[in-house]
Amino acid sequence: MPRLLALVCALLLAACAADPLTGPLTLQSQGSFFVGGRAVQSDTLSTLPAYAPSGTMVLDQMYVRYMTPPNPAPVSVTLIHGCCLTGKTWETTPDGRMGWDEYFVRRGFATHVVDQSWRGRSGGDIQAINAVRLGRAPVSTLPTVFAAGQEAAWAIFRFGDKYPDVHPGLRFPISAQREFWKQMVPDWLNAQPTPNPTVPALAELSRRLTRNVLISHSQSGIYPFQAVALNRQGIAGVIAVEPGACPDAAGDVAPYLHTPMLVLWGDYVPQAPRWAPRLVNCRAFVAKVNAAGGRAEQWVLPERGIHGNSHMLMQDNNSLEIAGMLADWINANAR
Amino acid sequence: MPRLLALVCALLLAACAADPLTGPLTLQSQGSFFVGGRAVQSDTLSTLPAYAPSGTMVLDQMYVRYMTPPNPAPVSVTLIHGCCLTGKTWETTPDGRMGWDEYFVRRGFATHVVDQSWRGRSGGDIQAINAVRLGRAPVSTLPTVFAAGQEAAWAIFRFGDKYPDVHPGLRFPISAQREFWKQMVPDWLNAQPTPNPTVPALAELSRRLTRNVLISHSQSGIYPFQAVALNRQGIAGVIAVEPGACPDAAGDVAPYLHTPMLVLWGDYVPQAPRWAPRLVNCRAFVAKVNAAGGRAEQWVLPERGIHGNSHMLMQDNNSLEIAGMLADWINANAR
Repeated sequence: MPRLLALVCALLLAACAADPLTGPLTLQSQGSFFVGGRAVQSDTLSTLPAYAPSGTMVLDQMYVRYMTPPNPAPVSVTLIHGCCLTGKTWETTPDGRMGWDEYFVRRGFATHVVDQSWRGRSGGDIQAINAVRLGRAPVSTLPTVFAAGQEAAWAIFRFGDKYPDVHPGLRFPISAQREFWKQMVPDWLNAQPTPNPTVPALAELSRRLTRNVLISHSQSGIYPFQAVALNRQGIAGVIAVEPGACPDAAGDVAPYLHTPMLVLWGDYVPQAPRWAPRLVNCRAFVAKVNAAGGRAEQWVLPERGIHGNSHMLMQDNNSLEIAGMLADWINANAR
Repeated sequence: MPRLLALVCALLLAACAADPLTGPLTLQSQGSFFVGGRAVQSDTLSTLPAYAPSGTMVLDQMYVRYMTPPNPAPVSVTLIHGCCLTGKTWETTPDGRMGWDEYFVRRGFATHVVDQSWRGRSGGDIQAINAVRLGRAPVSTLPTVFAAGQEAAWAIFRFGDKYPDVHPGLRFPISAQREFWKQMVPDWLNAQPTPNPTVPALAELSRRLTRNVLISHSQSGIYPFQAVALNRQGIAGVIAVEPGACPDAAGDVAPYLHTPMLVLWGDYVPQAPRWAPRLVNCRAFVAKVNAAGGRAEQWVLPERGIHGNSHMLMQDNNSLEIAGMLADWINANAR
């Protein structure tokens, strides 16, 4: 395309994108890549004659998919899913609405969605299964891997206090729950090395992106904090959406004083035995950071007049309203 | 956006997309969803106190990610990866070039990329592992799962006759092999039910899309044929890229006589013990279909003057040239 025409087109596209939330989605680029990964020699790759038992494989890599709008904002965002889920968390909702992945692009951010290492498109380790099957290792060395049952997950996701009760005013699209359950995958977290390889991969990704806001959820909630502690270079901000844990308020908060941080909670938390203490602990951490000169916030949506949000608030019926609040926070704090 | 402005913008966008392979990528829509899946009751979901052992999970669902251009062609395409890989196969190449996913969108096709069931973002079944670990089942019932070692995969992907030899003139970006190996994931194919749940899921996806071309690769090579035999409604064409198998030429080819079909092969096949007989069998199948009144073709790229293509030809340095040939074939045959 001639250069002048390309320029005219770029200007027209920008004008046509005046309302960023409707109409065609224009991308400067999109694609995927991996961060991290280590080569491993193995003798238990296979028990099948067609595939050799010995050889080299890669473990711990993290899959990253991105969409970049024209003239992206100076900071990018990275979305990190929680337990038993993959990057699908942030894509089209179970009832077919726009996901946060597209919303952040439409708000001007280069947006990255990862699969945690050993999950989704990020590989995994089946050596221990084959070692036991081949009689080379005891049954007790089988990997600790679990699938979350829907009935037990019901309360964890705070659709209701217990299955199949539904919280009054719940904003999760519970009529589309059949589609939601398809998002779940087996979770190998407890079979993985410590620290979880996703953490250094997030630090490395941020370093490459130069100014990146890490947005985590649930099980991955603490990963951005751990990445900051590991190497805060390139981490322009942390948003922890209903984190499984914040760093210990009784510990050393010095690593966290240079990064803007926001912890976000939905509704029904005080009555949820799994979540109530986590909110309390995060509040203490935020207070400690601020007292030490850092910049941290904790938002509890009902305290801000927004009611009915589940643990999966990126899929609730006000998901884009919440994403909008986060985008505004990023623009105000992480530039 | 006012309706007239939206129309003007749509026309401008179409004009600006005159050269579809460069410049911004404009999408009418993008997102993801699942096809298929069945609810399963289990008592071996977990061995951890924090997660209940009993409950309901979903198995066999197939993840689908799509990008749709403005004014899409009347047929859509669906890309299906092979052994030990995920939908990543079709995205950005290991050396950072455009994947077939984006190419087909830029050529005007609504493009779908799937993860086979039990792979990537499509869940999986870990019940048998927990049953053995809990002492409820013998070691022999552990799932048959394998990882392809790089040294053995080298010849299967036809980078060379044996590791680490490289075929003269090879078009695969071998200098980026470290990134390629990160794409590989454990393969649960041999632990899955028969027929593979991906097959009915592809049939169902095509029925929903109304006119869909299934493009398979390697291990999934035969799946589109099996989907046609199951229910050809909505399947506008089949392209099998280096299929692990074609349907048996000695069998009944009647199910395949109403669907345009193309089988594609790269270079170095006659010298590859794993692949040479497959090419021969597919040639016999194609001949049988045509003799019976169907429409099938087999392209062997060296016979068409194109040399140096590996088994991973969607990532070779002429990948877009090949994709262009396929897009032209679709426009000529699958409308």
